[in-house]
Amino acid sequence: MTTLPSKKTETVSVIGLGNMGRALAGAFLAAGYATTIWNRTAGRGDELVARGAVHAPSAAEAVRASALTVVSLVDYDAAEAVLGPLAQAGAFGGGRVLVNLTSDTPERSRSAAVWAAEHGIPYLDGSVLVPTPVVGTAEALVLYSGDRAVFAEYEDVLRALGGRAEFLGEDAGLAAVYDLAMLDFFYTAMSGLVHAFALAGADGVKAVELAPFLDTISSILPPLAGAMAGHVDAGSHPGTLGNLAMETAGIDHILHTARRRGLDVTVLEAVRTIAGRSVGKGYGGDDWSRTVDEVRTA
Amino acid sequence: MTTLPSKKTETVSVIGLGNMGRALAGAFLAAGYATTIWNRTAGRGDELVARGAVHAPSAAEAVRASALTVVSLVDYDAAEAVLGPLAQAGAFGGGRVLVNLTSDTPERSRSAAVWAAEHGIPYLDGSVLVPTPVVGTAEALVLYSGDRAVFAEYEDVLRALGGRAEFLGEDAGLAAVYDLAMLDFFYTAMSGLVHAFALAGADGVKAVELAPFLDTISSILPPLAGAMAGHVDAGSHPGTLGNLAMETAGIDHILHTARRRGLDVTVLEAVRTIAGRSVGKGYGGDDWSRTVDEVRTA
Ligand SMILES: NC(=O)c1ccc[n+]([C@@H]2O[C@H](COP(=O)([O-])OP(=O)(O)OC[C@H]3O[C@@H](n4cnc5c(N)ncnc54)[C@H](OP(=O)(O)O)[C@@H]3O)[C@@H](O)[C@H]2O)c1
Ligand SMILES: NC(=O)c1ccc[n+]([C@@H]2O[C@H](COP(=O)([O-])OP(=O)(O)OC[C@H]3O[C@@H](n4cnc5c(N)ncnc54)[C@H](OP(=O)(O)O)[C@@H]3O)[C@@H](O)[C@H]2O)c1
Repeated sequence: MTTLPSKKTETVSVIGLGNMGRALAGAFLAAGYATTIWNRTAGRGDELVARGAVHAPSAAEAVRASALTVVSLVDYDAAEAVLGPLAQAGAFGGGRVLVNLTSDTPERSRSAAVWAAEHGIPYLDGSVLVPTPVVGTAEALVLYSGDRAVFAEYEDVLRALGGRAEFLGEDAGLAAVYDLAMLDFFYTAMSGLVHAFALAGADGVKAVELAPFLDTISSILPPLAGAMAGHVDAGSHPGTLGNLAMETAGIDHILHTARRRGLDVTVLEAVRTIAGRSVGKGYGGDDWSRTVDEVRTA
Repeated sequence: MTTLPSKKTETVSVIGLGNMGRALAGAFLAAGYATTIWNRTAGRGDELVARGAVHAPSAAEAVRASALTVVSLVDYDAAEAVLGPLAQAGAFGGGRVLVNLTSDTPERSRSAAVWAAEHGIPYLDGSVLVPTPVVGTAEALVLYSGDRAVFAEYEDVLRALGGRAEFLGEDAGLAAVYDLAMLDFFYTAMSGLVHAFALAGADGVKAVELAPFLDTISSILPPLAGAMAGHVDAGSHPGTLGNLAMETAGIDHILHTARRRGLDVTVLEAVRTIAGRSVGKGYGGDDWSRTVDEVRTA
């Protein structure tokens, strides 16, 4: 063990130089941190080196160069393949901190936290919630969970990656839970967007003609999400603004129209089936949020 | 036929006093129009009468009272049941105008326009895109299609119902096309919201804790919709910001996690199947918008 690197040296290391890893390392450089980088395949960090980063000859040397190492690899299989031997070799000695921004399941994040604790590595798990061009800006949302002390100590350094850095709690899986829930909403909504383009397109409406109107739907989702969240937590779903009977009738108009135009309707059919189960149980007068009970019981 | 009512008398009639019809009539009253109302079942307009509306003894007399009649009934079966006999009896004589804000399929709207033309009734079809409390405000979006001259003549009167009154074109079905496409996106996204609450809830995260983060997803949808619309119209889907290979891998993490928690995953599975078909055809490097081709070919 050499001297203990301290945060005050303001050097950071980034392991993994895929699209996201390069964005993270670039954000550290932009914020003025001396940045050491490493990637399995050589050459992906050349532009970062040109901007002043140091490419370490090995992952172990990258870790030893800084008090803080940020990891961004394709998944936890890759992360374990890289980090396992490093921990074995004691590269994280001297209180070096590991922040893993690789995305995977909550279970993998929790296992990684257990593994880190076994090796005495202060560990923070995290998820980047924005596309790479937004990384490093004030708007960039990055969620963290795990070791609260690590977050407290490195929060200002981590803010170089995303101005909206949020610590969610000591369950290391929480960042992944929020990440997956947000992406669950995201991909489902993206599917709805594309289907809307196809439906309007079948009657000769250009996607660019429809897109501005879809924005009005996006803008009413946040207040509805807030209202539905209250219902979900309370287990009470009063249908004051809308109700499942009216809404399933509306969905039937869409399905009927989409089928006549030969479109794939598997997604909205699944939505309709779930809502229909709620109606069938006598909840036709309830808010849409009532369908959470059907989602929970597959 | 008595004297021809002119727009300048500024009297309007509303047929159908369900939740939406009452909101429409209330908006006309609030804007200072002398308003005549009618509903199949008596009593639903009592509050409007207290605010100065006149309840006509029959639908025919409601139509005869004004140059403009707005109709809001549950669907086009109901609209035909009410309007058919009125046209037969010549109630729309003298150039009286019919604006039908009942929601149904584009086919029904187009049939109604043909029917109106056969009876010499100037006809505008429309869709109200906002919930009843928003009706009558500057933000209320109401879409119209059909007879352009009717919209031009009555646009300022119709703005009493919604400040965002948009004429889409002379195909009377267009308002319904936009309406259904927007609701298609809406219900699919609402399904994603509820599923996200269920997924996070399975790991102990309250819905109110998650809801503020879901807003960040809603806010990135409009620019993505704009970008995807350009791709859809061009038939070219460059994966510059994201690509289907990465996105389907992300969806698999969500599905895996949701299945382990015993959640219904039928909706996201259908989304995954469609995206997987694109990937299977060699479009793994393309943008999400590429999936429109799979939706179009059921
Ligand atoms: N890109 C985004 O917009 C975005 C947004 C939010 C979150 N994320 C998350 O960020 C993480 C990284 O994504 P990315 O877009 O940067 O992916 P990427 O461009 O595909 O890069 C993958 C990285 O993982 C490395 N890797 C894969 N298998 C490895 C192994 N067995 N051993 C060592 N290294 C290995 C690759 O190294 P080689 O160069 O040697 O192949 C590369 O550095 C993912 O978890 C992703 O979900 C990405
Ligand atoms: N409510 C909303 O938030 C909302 C938002 C956007 C669009 N819309 C659309 O607005 C339209 C009206 O919706 P709503 O919420 O007002 O529905 P509602 O409250 O259920 O009212 C239905 C209306 O239709 C009448 N009706 C039904 N069958 C009839 C028949 N055979 N003959 C005569 N009248 C009949 C009812 O008269 P009785 O009173 O005699 O039963 C009542 O006036 C629908 O097309 C809906 O999709 C509603």
